[in-house]
Amino acid sequence: MAEAGPPHMSPDEFREAAGRIADWVASYMERVEEFPVMSRARPGEVFSSLPEAPPEGPEPLDAVMADLEKLILPGLTHWQSPSFFGYFPANATGPAMLADMVASGLGVQGMLWSTSPACTEVETRVLDWLAGMLGLPERFDSRTGIGGGVIQGTASEATLVALVAARARALRNDPDVDHSAPFGVYTSTQAHSSIVKGASIAGLGADAVRLIEVDERLAMRPDALAEAIARDRAAGRRPLFVCATVGTTSSAAIDPVRPIGELCRRENLWLHVDAAYAGAMCVCPEYRWIIDGVEHADSFVFNPHKWLLTNFDCSAFWVADRADLLGALSITPEYLRNAASDAGAVIDYRDWQIPLGRRFRSLKLWFVIRHYGVEGLREFIRHHLGLAELFESLVRSDERFEICAPRTTSLVCFRLRAGDEPSRELLRRLNESGAMFLTHTTLPDPGAPGVDRYTLRMAIGAVRTQEQHIRAAWRRMQETATEVLAG
Amino acid sequence: MAEAGPPHMSPDEFREAAGRIADWVASYMERVEEFPVMSRARPGEVFSSLPEAPPEGPEPLDAVMADLEKLILPGLTHWQSPSFFGYFPANATGPAMLADMVASGLGVQGMLWSTSPACTEVETRVLDWLAGMLGLPERFDSRTGIGGGVIQGTASEATLVALVAARARALRNDPDVDHSAPFGVYTSTQAHSSIVKGASIAGLGADAVRLIEVDERLAMRPDALAEAIARDRAAGRRPLFVCATVGTTSSAAIDPVRPIGELCRRENLWLHVDAAYAGAMCVCPEYRWIIDGVEHADSFVFNPHKWLLTNFDCSAFWVADRADLLGALSITPEYLRNAASDAGAVIDYRDWQIPLGRRFRSLKLWFVIRHYGVEGLREFIRHHLGLAELFESLVRSDERFEICAPRTTSLVCFRLRAGDEPSRELLRRLNESGAMFLTHTTLPDPGAPGVDRYTLRMAIGAVRTQEQHIRAAWRRMQETATEVLAG
Repeated sequence: MAEAGPPHMSPDEFREAAGRIADWVASYMERVEEFPVMSRARPGEVFSSLPEAPPEGPEPLDAVMADLEKLILPGLTHWQSPSFFGYFPANATGPAMLADMVASGLGVQGMLWSTSPACTEVETRVLDWLAGMLGLPERFDSRTGIGGGVIQGTASEATLVALVAARARALRNDPDVDHSAPFGVYTSTQAHSSIVKGASIAGLGADAVRLIEVDERLAMRPDALAEAIARDRAAGRRPLFVCATVGTTSSAAIDPVRPIGELCRRENLWLHVDAAYAGAMCVCPEYRWIIDGVEHADSFVFNPHKWLLTNFDCSAFWVADRADLLGALSITPEYLRNAASDAGAVIDYRDWQIPLGRRFRSLKLWFVIRHYGVEGLREFIRHHLGLAELFESLVRSDERFEICAPRTTSLVCFRLRAGDEPSRELLRRLNESGAMFLTHTTLPDPGAPGVDRYTLRMAIGAVRTQEQHIRAAWRRMQETATEVLAG
Repeated sequence: MAEAGPPHMSPDEFREAAGRIADWVASYMERVEEFPVMSRARPGEVFSSLPEAPPEGPEPLDAVMADLEKLILPGLTHWQSPSFFGYFPANATGPAMLADMVASGLGVQGMLWSTSPACTEVETRVLDWLAGMLGLPERFDSRTGIGGGVIQGTASEATLVALVAARARALRNDPDVDHSAPFGVYTSTQAHSSIVKGASIAGLGADAVRLIEVDERLAMRPDALAEAIARDRAAGRRPLFVCATVGTTSSAAIDPVRPIGELCRRENLWLHVDAAYAGAMCVCPEYRWIIDGVEHADSFVFNPHKWLLTNFDCSAFWVADRADLLGALSITPEYLRNAASDAGAVIDYRDWQIPLGRRFRSLKLWFVIRHYGVEGLREFIRHHLGLAELFESLVRSDERFEICAPRTTSLVCFRLRAGDEPSRELLRRLNESGAMFLTHTTLPDPGAPGVDRYTLRMAIGAVRTQEQHIRAAWRRMQETATEVLAG
């Protein structure tokens, strides 16, 4: 019987086409340093280069690939360039890409255990591995039957999930309290915007989030947190949730998890630890002090898709008690019922997340961990931390510059002593040069309370960043600073 | 200077390894009909087959690929099998996989326009294409400068985003009303569980969702909706949001969008149209009647990752007024500020979604639309609708069976006249045979108000499903029915 419907790519055609695309990706890796790191596209340029209407008939792959070169590449900021130092890194690697190709090809959905048991069970096992690799407490291990890990799309989603789980737990545990009392959510002034966004989505109200003062290291002050909680309780608010950040976005400051956690235990608040970036460092035992006290956490998130060699999206999230998630997120219509779920013998990850559908993302972690081995991952982190130490020492060696936050991770915050405007101009010229890409933030000036200073962020973490890229970047920074300061 | 850190896969090693993985994926396509469609794995089997601890040193790709064969394949339910008829389909195709490989290799983040302009602008253009291809009203087109489209991970996320945008708009437009009045959210008894889940996550309270009665076609009754709204207003509730479903999960019933939309206009409620599955049919002009009245919608979602040849995740979501999203979801910390955003000249898609980070997902749509052409996509949909018509006629030809919901899409709902238990047993035996996979639901019995009947769902939509698969499935259904009914 002849096939009906449009012709699909045959397995052999796929072999051939995939070979060409893989070759193009490999050649992109080879050429990535030839492009200006920051795209020079103007608003609307890429949009207007694409036809106004889609093609009625099929187009050959050649045409699409030609457009990739001509229209897409100039519109990219090259996150995989070894001279990309902006935001936080977004590691893409061979083994993760191969795993993604497998996940695409299998095309299974993992919303329920029964919709593809391997999709759930590989994820559970690999997140147990990862918990052990980071030195997380045993309560997050799935083998306890109580805690466990799950892959979320992003840390923002993980934070939202933790918030709604905390709310559901509070409503369940204290059914008799005054339900009209607004909840309180606590995090530092330096915490990620996703806490405020999550609270707003969850309907807690943007003013539910109390931004707690930080100390001179830009870390949350536990005494200020205790005061805020006491003040809110006295005013009739209902403290619910604390987010401690291990590696803030602006400066990678490390909130002290232990005293914050002890306070949460006493006050019966949900403690969520957001280690989105810096959590990767915990694969090295010598850096696990940054999460000291994590045994008090109700939930913990870090993003292998940032600095642990695993393509986006892959945000690893653990909870101490999975019942808290199920209480908040489990809804079972008839069309999702099945024997395994009804028997309670399995994990259905749809109840651990906002979406229903889910891709076989754990393959990425499985491939990456096996490709590098745990020791290889440690070597990767240590290498970048060494480069950050080098860069910090270079900055300190030039008195026109200053380091403006204590450094624990591979993020170095610095500026020109000459002030905000020269620092802003330095960043602008560096990015426009095409030789590198950095982003900025503002940080409180320890010498001038209430004043924020423009700060350059050097986030070292791209897969192929080597000492030569750090030294070349620094040379250009010095030269550009000379030009800027000459006026 | 020698590389430091662990050895990464070189471009040439990637070429070689990607060729092997692509070959494995192609061979999976070739072999997919050899496996039992539904996995026979028992709970815990895959988990316990994986080592308790991760490897300390690197492992070769060979070892991982051997485990794919031995441990993973038996743990899969094969969604890409042409005899997969469960849930709704999750199309995986060559061009979409190639595009995903490109997105993985480029590894860019599209949270802001400035983080990679092409990632935003291809998405905007392709969603304009898609809006035109579906015959959506002009107000959803980005070129209006007001409306526009965005790719979400899933329809569940799109619904949640629509809900919080609706709430933010209501609070902004009516700042003086009683804020303690609970909101009302309206959808039919047949709507997807994500509406209740979304309302719960958004903190509207699970009881905010009013499930509206359906007519004999299982479509929402506009008169019942109007009554529920009036009743709620009278009782001090604040009607906010209506979700009309075009293609419900249980039976693919089509809510009448026009009268519902006119009611929403009069009542000043947000109308969200959830066409997650059936929306794909609108690429054929002759089926656009299913969304007649969509010009009244504030938002619309359909999933190309279901039945439009584009790998998960790719949920296309449009809003009539992007300001509603920004009002709900835009938060700009200093570390995300940039000149293009500050000038208001660009779209920053992070403000259109829950997460911050985002992958270059529009490449998938771009590759798929160009590979098939619009006409090829129409041919695909028409082919499956023809197969559904065939299957329905086969079922009707055997008096032991009955069709139990009107059919508009490629989903056919049927059961054994002998009752729930024989129907359940039929499904169990079909799935255990390995020859096909179907799922079930319950549907109200038109002859017995208040009684729900066990119903088998035949969802036709896997990429390679052909007439022979439908006929083979039907033959086995008849044979198995004979066995079941013989007792």
